Amino acid sequence: MGERREELTMFEVAPWGIALDGVKESHLAHEESVFGLSNGHVGWRANLDEGDPRGVAGSYLNGVFEEHPMPYAEDGYGYPDCGQTVINVQNGQIIRLTVDDEPFDVTRGELVRHRRSLDFQDGTLHRDVEWISPTDRRVRIESTRIVSFTHRSVAAVRYRVQAVDQEVAISIQSEVLPNEPLPITHADPRVQELLTKPLVGVDSNVIDTAATLVHRTRKSGLTIAVSSDHVVTASGATAPTVTTEATHELTRTTVRVVLAPGEHVEVVKFVGHEWSATASAATLRDRAEVAAADAKRAGWDRLVAEQRARLDDYWACADVEVDGEPRLQQAVRYALFQVFQASVRAELRSVPGKGLTGSGYEGHTFWDFEAYVLPVLTSTAPHAAEQALRWRHSTLDHARERAEHLHLRGAAFPWRTIDGRESSGYWPAGTAAFHVNADIAGAVLHYVRATGDHAFEREVGVELLVETARLWLSLGRWDCAGGFHIDGVTGPDEYSAIADDNIYTNLMARQNLRGAADAARRHPEIADALGADDAERESWLQAAEAMTVLFDEDRGVHPQSARFTDQQRWAFASTSPDQYPLHSHFPYFDLYRKQVVKQADLVLALFFAHEAFTAEQKARDFAYYEEVTVRDSSLSAAAQAVIAAEVGQLELAYDYLGEAATLDLDDLQGDTDEGLHIAALAGVWTAITAGFGGMRDSDEGLRFSPRLPERLGRLCFGVRIHGQTLRVEITPSKATYSLKSGSPLTIGHFADEVELRAGEPVTREIPDLAEAGPRPEQPKGRAPRDAAVAFARSRR
Amino acid sequence: MGERREELTMFEVAPWGIALDGVKESHLAHEESVFGLSNGHVGWRANLDEGDPRGVAGSYLNGVFEEHPMPYAEDGYGYPDCGQTVINVQNGQIIRLTVDDEPFDVTRGELVRHRRSLDFQDGTLHRDVEWISPTDRRVRIESTRIVSFTHRSVAAVRYRVQAVDQEVAISIQSEVLPNEPLPITHADPRVQELLTKPLVGVDSNVIDTAATLVHRTRKSGLTIAVSSDHVVTASGATAPTVTTEATHELTRTTVRVVLAPGEHVEVVKFVGHEWSATASAATLRDRAEVAAADAKRAGWDRLVAEQRARLDDYWACADVEVDGEPRLQQAVRYALFQVFQASVRAELRSVPGKGLTGSGYEGHTFWDFEAYVLPVLTSTAPHAAEQALRWRHSTLDHARERAEHLHLRGAAFPWRTIDGRESSGYWPAGTAAFHVNADIAGAVLHYVRATGDHAFEREVGVELLVETARLWLSLGRWDCAGGFHIDGVTGPDEYSAIADDNIYTNLMARQNLRGAADAARRHPEIADALGADDAERESWLQAAEAMTVLFDEDRGVHPQSARFTDQQRWAFASTSPDQYPLHSHFPYFDLYRKQVVKQADLVLALFFAHEAFTAEQKARDFAYYEEVTVRDSSLSAAAQAVIAAEVGQLELAYDYLGEAATLDLDDLQGDTDEGLHIAALAGVWTAITAGFGGMRDSDEGLRFSPRLPERLGRLCFGVRIHGQTLRVEITPSKATYSLKSGSPLTIGHFADEVELRAGEPVTREIPDLAEAGPRPEQPKGRAPRDAAVAFARSRR
Repeated sequence: MGERREELTMFEVAPWGIALDGVKESHLAHEESVFGLSNGHVGWRANLDEGDPRGVAGSYLNGVFEEHPMPYAEDGYGYPDCGQTVINVQNGQIIRLTVDDEPFDVTRGELVRHRRSLDFQDGTLHRDVEWISPTDRRVRIESTRIVSFTHRSVAAVRYRVQAVDQEVAISIQSEVLPNEPLPITHADPRVQELLTKPLVGVDSNVIDTAATLVHRTRKSGLTIAVSSDHVVTASGATAPTVTTEATHELTRTTVRVVLAPGEHVEVVKFVGHEWSATASAATLRDRAEVAAADAKRAGWDRLVAEQRARLDDYWACADVEVDGEPRLQQAVRYALFQVFQASVRAELRSVPGKGLTGSGYEGHTFWDFEAYVLPVLTSTAPHAAEQALRWRHSTLDHARERAEHLHLRGAAFPWRTIDGRESSGYWPAGTAAFHVNADIAGAVLHYVRATGDHAFEREVGVELLVETARLWLSLGRWDCAGGFHIDGVTGPDEYSAIADDNIYTNLMARQNLRGAADAARRHPEIADALGADDAERESWLQAAEAMTVLFDEDRGVHPQSARFTDQQRWAFASTSPDQYPLHSHFPYFDLYRKQVVKQADLVLALFFAHEAFTAEQKARDFAYYEEVTVRDSSLSAAAQAVIAAEVGQLELAYDYLGEAATLDLDDLQGDTDEGLHIAALAGVWTAITAGFGGMRDSDEGLRFSPRLPERLGRLCFGVRIHGQTLRVEITPSKATYSLKSGSPLTIGHFADEVELRAGEPVTREIPDLAEAGPRPEQPKGRAPRDAAVAFARSRR
Repeated sequence: MGERREELTMFEVAPWGIALDGVKESHLAHEESVFGLSNGHVGWRANLDEGDPRGVAGSYLNGVFEEHPMPYAEDGYGYPDCGQTVINVQNGQIIRLTVDDEPFDVTRGELVRHRRSLDFQDGTLHRDVEWISPTDRRVRIESTRIVSFTHRSVAAVRYRVQAVDQEVAISIQSEVLPNEPLPITHADPRVQELLTKPLVGVDSNVIDTAATLVHRTRKSGLTIAVSSDHVVTASGATAPTVTTEATHELTRTTVRVVLAPGEHVEVVKFVGHEWSATASAATLRDRAEVAAADAKRAGWDRLVAEQRARLDDYWACADVEVDGEPRLQQAVRYALFQVFQASVRAELRSVPGKGLTGSGYEGHTFWDFEAYVLPVLTSTAPHAAEQALRWRHSTLDHARERAEHLHLRGAAFPWRTIDGRESSGYWPAGTAAFHVNADIAGAVLHYVRATGDHAFEREVGVELLVETARLWLSLGRWDCAGGFHIDGVTGPDEYSAIADDNIYTNLMARQNLRGAADAARRHPEIADALGADDAERESWLQAAEAMTVLFDEDRGVHPQSARFTDQQRWAFASTSPDQYPLHSHFPYFDLYRKQVVKQADLVLALFFAHEAFTAEQKARDFAYYEEVTVRDSSLSAAAQAVIAAEVGQLELAYDYLGEAATLDLDDLQGDTDEGLHIAALAGVWTAITAGFGGMRDSDEGLRFSPRLPERLGRLCFGVRIHGQTLRVEITPSKATYSLKSGSPLTIGHFADEVELRAGEPVTREIPDLAEAGPRPEQPKGRAPRDAAVAFARSRR
């Protein structure tokens, strides 16, 4: 956790893109994350083409990591002995430029113009530079980067240099470099040693303008091939010379040309990436080379056109229109763009908490992917959602082994991982946070409800539901009065731990158990193959029925877990602003024993298990937990926005939405350097659709209770449902629902049922808001920023 | 935690010593611990004189340790970043022997006789060997070792070799060796590197037959000097030649002589040890040399005579006589001897959990020193108790800093340490186990009650009580009904953690608060200097008065902590014997959420806070907790013995006493290799005096409710009280109390008051035992061994 920057990076506001003029070295790492490109398989941070200066080098290939020992001051049973950390693959971004005898460097000479812009519709990062070298040579440089959605293993750069007012000799070195440095994350020198130069050269190959590097990791035993190929053109009389060379330490294609004023040279670099834990170096070399060659044959223009088409398709459903606050409009599209980038081609690999935009959290995926990101994907890019769940399914054997090791049944999915094995070294918030299993099951249930994808359910869904249901039965216990309890676990709020009957965990487990029983009933042959007989199915239903949901009658609220509301309140009044986040300034034992909530936990349950609470309970619970929630996690604001909106606290909801929307762009937590917060970005969509759209999903289908905050004049969003796109348009007084095509659909609008037919929009009045009560209070200094002020400040 | 040996080491049974014939290489490490010599300042494991073979090399100097980084997979606020591990100082034990051209080695040639014996009255370890070399030379070797109680920094060896039946050329190399290997305790190579050769040579010096090595540790910055000097005599015609040499890597005095049959040569080696964090190498060299020289001037016989005298003095009060089981008689004296050795000259240094008999627990001291060992010292060697508490006091600044770092007031003493700084890397059983502070306060209160040592109270006691009382006030909280709670802490039972209102902690904190208020009232000028005004004193009394003591009305027992008795019981029936200790086979989260007790916690409170419970409550509580206590800690049996005896379960108490008494001698936990369990050894005395003697201490003085188990015919023990020795003799029907000298003393015998005068023993009847109810059950497979069988087996 870093510190908030003194000075914000002021991105230019535009409806379909984000741009920045100038370069500030101290802001580079932040900008590299914000402008990062990815397709879920290949990820390139927006390092400058020429490599230096840079904040944090980042070229990632989903699933590529190094293993390392996990150090413990005092070991314990069940502690993972092996950690996993994402590493840089061979970096294909590098294009170095020399103008006469001066290397192009933004920190030297005069930077007349430097502008970077990310286009959400094109899916490209553009850079526009005019530079005067220290010896007074003026050039224009334009580069455009793409990480292709249609060529999964390919990234490409079009790099163009133009002489402006005198003749210049130009050298362009296009390189692929292994072992670019990683941030140091572990004090243990064994780990540092493994991560300092994780890649060992295995092979290199040059054919004409194409060159390939093959490397292997030492512990995890992965082989990675990166190949680059080039198309070089020049507008002038002299033809450029092109040479290509390779060692195990680099590949380099050098382009030399003399440009007269007005002439330009253009290099298009196609980079193919392949890795495997099993395939041979030769196989991977060939695959990387063919990927680069195929992209080259397709050509730059086609790559760009395909990228645009793929995004047009995405935005047709996913786009959210916001009238009233241009900065919010931009932030929402930015968030959706990054969520899409993080996942679209992940395909049977995990989606890390930072996507492929940084090495924060060591590249691990967490529960929030299923809980926060998957609902958005399910509603906007269901194929990516399916693939992600199939990835979880592919790790079931690890999860079964982990469960067995913990003396439990079924599957215990890891708290943090890259390849499916538990990599959490802090058990109270790792091993004990079993809710990840219910979050996965919940994502399965939602995906199946939203898509009706029966093949998925048969092949993957039932087994995931059954194995997680088994976990709950073995983890919980029956009391003598017939109640079912899940003791000693940790919920989403990491300022409590190993507590009994965490309400989020219990309600999510109940959904899990019921969903498993239902799926097993509908697919008896699969249930049979999994050994789940009627008696077992019945036991799930009984446990679900008997699941403990605590209620504090005295205070009229639900305790987050047993005894929670009896605990002492944190001394918020005497906690100073610089003592947040609390876990960096107070010991865990003290956080655990007091009423202080890091992030929405019960409030998240009010959303995910919305049917378990009355409206009055929601309002009371929300107000109660607002007073003790400090939002030391980026996951919190979106959930608070959703429930704030539901209980009629629309302006508060808007402030929380503002916080989620500006989290990474304004670097609110000071750690966007390490990568974007993909789940929090997904939460922006959720705050809008489930918050102001009032969208709730259940076995009965979708229901909307929309209501706009004062500052927004109109909101419009789309939701994929059973292969169709439902668009919802909300104004202060009316909501319009339209289906473009497909079969009729019944949805809910407040208490009403609405029958929709393709091409026949239905408009309904929004009923008046009931009295919402006073705006709930947050702990001293922890109220969200006023969103209007925050948006204005960002624009200054 | 190791495994129980297949085959027990069968020590010879004798009332005042322990002996063993033969050498078994696989048992060496165990025997080195059992035969270890120490005075609390210098500790020598019983490595064979010639150095090899050996189990674990061990030459310790109290307070000498190396610092090292503490590795965490995931760091947290308040985690200590620096660990401490005891290291070997320069080893002065080594005396190598060559007979003609054959080095003496017990694994080669023929060992005609090999006997080691430790004498509890002489305080010496004797070795008697007859050996025929592979080339058929027969010699007798006798060595006697002493770690002097009167020359604090001195250990000495008398080593005598006799030719038996032919002339032999003898070489004796008497050495001091730095950097003898330590067991590897950390996977982190930074730690291993620091601990592999922790000593760096600074100086060496030779004067005649004396030689000195001075070394320094790299991180902790300690300088250590070890000097040896020699007296060489021979009975034959030829005078031995003696040469002495030294490098930074060794000192060596070589004695060469040719012995005719029947002739002998004798080397007496005096070894002086000095260390300091501040003094110069030259100063320490001189101190070590003068220590060795002074011992040499005194001479071997005087060292031995002084040792005997010091022990005679000790045994005059401390001796426990047991009629009926010779093995128990031996074990009790062995235990007292080792407790005395561990502490007698520790003087302002900590007494580690293993004393100076091994590097287990990294040489750290824990709460059990104050809770288990100090009461024994206070009653048998009060000067050692005083010194130990003065050591704690000398670390107050560290404890105050730690409290401040945790945002608490007063002092927070470390869970494990060598020099007073927290070195626990597992916070739920470290930081959260605040009861250590009340244990220290309890030891202060007991010491002052037992000795009436007002100087101690003024100089040390009041401040310790005040600073620990302040901790409780800041750690606890008031509820709205005026109750005082201490939430989120860990009691003695390490299979529960971060629980609310742990009864042991609360009751001990109450004693602490009341004791502090009382001491501050009696010493207003000291309280004033500490800033403890009347209001603060009043707040302690109020918190003590309002201290929560939970009671489970449904079950009629005290819960160990909030919700404990509601928790699920551990599945003992399905836990197999090889799954103990549980923490090596189950994850902590599962242990923490279930009713399973590692070691006496509430049962310890029944003893230490005996006035807080009725007899009926004690019986019910004891029976209840017996069912869930697995005794995975060596500390448990003694406490269970005490309460078993109190509630009339005399045979069960005897079995627990048997377990405590044989723990190290029979290596019941399989880890005596790493050193003796000093606190468990102290518990043997406690099981006898507080168990069968029924001794309880309170502000009203000592009270006895003695009662023998069937197998014992008579028990007699002594207790120091206000400078006098009270002896208590118990037979099945009578108890006799006698004071040798001093002023009259009132004690309790069951419900009666008894006035004692010097030289006038008082005998009282022991009332009939009330019906005790059925013998409580333990978890499957966790009942203690039948002591009669265990003692018989050991004797076989």
